[in-house]
Amino acid sequence: MEKYCFGVDVGGTTVKIGLFQDDLQMVSKWEIPTRTEENGRNIIPDIADSIKQEMKDKDLKPENVLGIGIGIPGPVLEESVVNNCVNLGWGVVNVKKELSSKLFYLPVKAGNDANVAALGEAVAGAGEGRRDVVMLTLGTGLGGGVIIEGKIHAGAHGAAGEFGHMPMFDKAVDYCGCGKRGCTEQIAGAKGMISYTRHLIAGGESRSGLSFLREFTARDIFDFAKDGDELANTVVNEMVETLGKTLSILGVAFDPEVFIIGGGMSRAGEWLLEKIRASYAEKAFHAVKNIDIIGATLGNDAGMTGAAALIIRG
Amino acid sequence: MEKYCFGVDVGGTTVKIGLFQDDLQMVSKWEIPTRTEENGRNIIPDIADSIKQEMKDKDLKPENVLGIGIGIPGPVLEESVVNNCVNLGWGVVNVKKELSSKLFYLPVKAGNDANVAALGEAVAGAGEGRRDVVMLTLGTGLGGGVIIEGKIHAGAHGAAGEFGHMPMFDKAVDYCGCGKRGCTEQIAGAKGMISYTRHLIAGGESRSGLSFLREFTARDIFDFAKDGDELANTVVNEMVETLGKTLSILGVAFDPEVFIIGGGMSRAGEWLLEKIRASYAEKAFHAVKNIDIIGATLGNDAGMTGAAALIIRG
Repeated sequence: MEKYCFGVDVGGTTVKIGLFQDDLQMVSKWEIPTRTEENGRNIIPDIADSIKQEMKDKDLKPENVLGIGIGIPGPVLEESVVNNCVNLGWGVVNVKKELSSKLFYLPVKAGNDANVAALGEAVAGAGEGRRDVVMLTLGTGLGGGVIIEGKIHAGAHGAAGEFGHMPMFDKAVDYCGCGKRGCTEQIAGAKGMISYTRHLIAGGESRSGLSFLREFTARDIFDFAKDGDELANTVVNEMVETLGKTLSILGVAFDPEVFIIGGGMSRAGEWLLEKIRASYAEKAFHAVKNIDIIGATLGNDAGMTGAAALIIRG
Repeated sequence: MEKYCFGVDVGGTTVKIGLFQDDLQMVSKWEIPTRTEENGRNIIPDIADSIKQEMKDKDLKPENVLGIGIGIPGPVLEESVVNNCVNLGWGVVNVKKELSSKLFYLPVKAGNDANVAALGEAVAGAGEGRRDVVMLTLGTGLGGGVIIEGKIHAGAHGAAGEFGHMPMFDKAVDYCGCGKRGCTEQIAGAKGMISYTRHLIAGGESRSGLSFLREFTARDIFDFAKDGDELANTVVNEMVETLGKTLSILGVAFDPEVFIIGGGMSRAGEWLLEKIRASYAEKAFHAVKNIDIIGATLGNDAGMTGAAALIIRG
């Protein structure tokens, strides 16, 4: 009898769901909206209904399904309980229990979304075949995940891999969402990068084409930098220096087999990766200097894939 | 039949050896000199002879001995091979194979000394009962060890836990032994701390009783600081700030259950720990703010105990 599992990636606006074979090959994927109203009370029932429908369509019985893995944008304890997920409107929610009770009491395992994405990349993406992987996700903020011996290392408070909140960027002007000032994500996350760029433009230190745009994105900053814009390059260099330093610290902390760089900002591609590699090579301790720094390969599927891996590689 | 094991802690001048029961209770301990001459070729035979003698004295047969764990002051790969241990005069040495062949082919497991000491503290010392522990060893340099799920996380190059070489101390004047400048141990290891103090004295920025001493130790710096010496306090504050920042980074990286501070410098005691805690509390990400920072309790026995734990806790 063929065995399958579901991988669910819950985001603030959509929930991505994938059906996977037990070798982590994806069979199908789709999305449903994330209904965050009423403290997100519909989110889990919606997921359960959607999975039931897919099981019906594909003629899958509960005995064909190994379980459901689910990634949540918040801290997750013991693969089951989410504690205060602001983006979803949730307080304390036992995802494992609630989802399982609505899906034939199949096994459910939950993980933090950044951790789960790192697991996806580690088992079926850029890090395939590696057991010890550290991933940095350069998105709106800076997230991350730690895979040790092929498994997520979530930490005692579910906060392992929160690399965005290392105190690494002294030049930060604003406060970070966490209440501190100087967090890595204040230059290496899109939001912080844009904010820092605005600050430099306001300061008028160097001229920049960006100052003529009413709105700009991190992608614009990269594009202007590639075209030689001085201020954009100043910002990118700050970002790269901070990331190089961050990785050189994580190098002697974890000594992973590989660093994976993912998230929306990593779409700047090899151009950005080369800069990060050069900064790392300059700062890293000799014993860890040759750790590869590579781009993520699964894109938006990393979360679903990693969620499925929670069940299959569990 | 009672089962025992040996825990060996190889240092640059002495080898500490302990006989342990299988519940990690120490039965006896002793030391032999570390003969580093002739590329340290006698070190392993000396250890084997000394253990054989103890087995004879205690009337232990090979079948009473579960194995020998051994901590080495260098990088150790796969619990067996040491690659270039300068302090012992060693090139590539398969410690596991060599020691086992001289001791009735009993099981041997080797680990880096700082990692093994961390394991000792985690299983039988300050961290007893905790599974995820990060230890910092404030000695001549700054070493460390990472225990995840009750086991040493050594990393892909045996460099995990080399916290002394995080680029955290921009004010460093000299180069670090590793060839970089600005490593954590350049203020948080005794050698670096003394060197930085000398630099401040030479700069004449503030007066200090230390300037009247021809030689001084890290302990002197702490003692003068406790007595209100301005310059000594400047140095201690730099050290504490750097350690607070280091721990706040390791907090979001590993999110351990506890931080353990050991090594010779930790003898400065609660006075120093309180300062480190205050600095950490100020800098740490909210989710990891309540991680305990505690002093090591096994002292010089940590290495032997952890080495024995390599065998007993597998």
